[in-house]
Amino acid sequence: MDFDASDLTLQQAYKLMTGVVVPRPIAWVSTLNAEGKINLAPFSAFTFVSHAPPMIAISVGMRNGDLKDTARNILARKEFVVNVANHALLGAVHQSSFEYPPDVSEVDALGLAVHPSHHIQTPRIAQAPAALECRLHQCLELGREPSRLIVGEVLRFHVRDGLAIDNKITAADLDPISRLGGPNYATLGKVVTIT
Amino acid sequence: MDFDASDLTLQQAYKLMTGVVVPRPIAWVSTLNAEGKINLAPFSAFTFVSHAPPMIAISVGMRNGDLKDTARNILARKEFVVNVANHALLGAVHQSSFEYPPDVSEVDALGLAVHPSHHIQTPRIAQAPAALECRLHQCLELGREPSRLIVGEVLRFHVRDGLAIDNKITAADLDPISRLGGPNYATLGKVVTIT
Repeated sequence: MDFDASDLTLQQAYKLMTGVVVPRPIAWVSTLNAEGKINLAPFSAFTFVSHAPPMIAISVGMRNGDLKDTARNILARKEFVVNVANHALLGAVHQSSFEYPPDVSEVDALGLAVHPSHHIQTPRIAQAPAALECRLHQCLELGREPSRLIVGEVLRFHVRDGLAIDNKITAADLDPISRLGGPNYATLGKVVTIT
Repeated sequence: MDFDASDLTLQQAYKLMTGVVVPRPIAWVSTLNAEGKINLAPFSAFTFVSHAPPMIAISVGMRNGDLKDTARNILARKEFVVNVANHALLGAVHQSSFEYPPDVSEVDALGLAVHPSHHIQTPRIAQAPAALECRLHQCLELGREPSRLIVGEVLRFHVRDGLAIDNKITAADLDPISRLGGPNYATLGKVVTIT
């Protein structure tokens, strides 16, 4: 079956795109708002975009015509943390995707703990097996009601003790979760090593 | 354990980044070179970046100081196809990641068949369960020896008959593969639906 993008509603195109670009890693992004409250939300349009220096990118869509809190906070503070969630944190990741009142921190509402970061003011999630302290490098607007493609330089990597051996991380030990289309997540399947 | 990016070699930072940004979906990209030969290569720094219109992005690094064939072909032709591979195609995906002589098409070397595209000249892989015809929208240079972040607008979606029902794609039917750190791929794990 073939579908011309110009014949599809936005919702239809979105369903197809989120259904075939799978499985997607999840950036569980903590930011600070103007009052210093910690915001936390998951984004699965997430990848790395440079290795010298290490940089990652997340795409943040609009919500009802407004910038989402995460994008607003990053543009104001020029910094953020990408926390990496694992299977044990799936419930909290999903809960953090809902809209909370601006004066409620997802971190408090979900009973999560935080650790201070080293280079930036934004804390990281204590329970996350890995976290990347990032400084905003660039923000690109793409499309109508533009999505923001936020590019961050990774200043520091935090990895749970024992998880990285010689800078290598065994995926099964990390036990990552991923995002599929619709209301679906996935655990890691069989690891196939080709040498 | 904490690692400052500035204390790491590029190789160490790359290992950490590719080890925590997991699992990554795979864009199996077909392009045409100047002679009209089909090039095919997999890229796992891949996500979507806009839904109106639908756009995807892939990050293509340099190889020995040169642009990779995929990036060179996309910049010259302004078009490409993102083929979506599944578990059955894992061997071919991996084989297509090696460097072939410029006059050898990966498609021929791997015994793959192609179908013509509708809006662009670049063919798509017949065996792929889904494929996205893309027109180059923008190319961003990021980092030193810059990686190219190639943003493409999706003009047409091809989906294997029966795979999309009401524009929804069931991940287990697609049977996608993903990329982890090191020489590792993964199959889809358990699907968790949260409603």
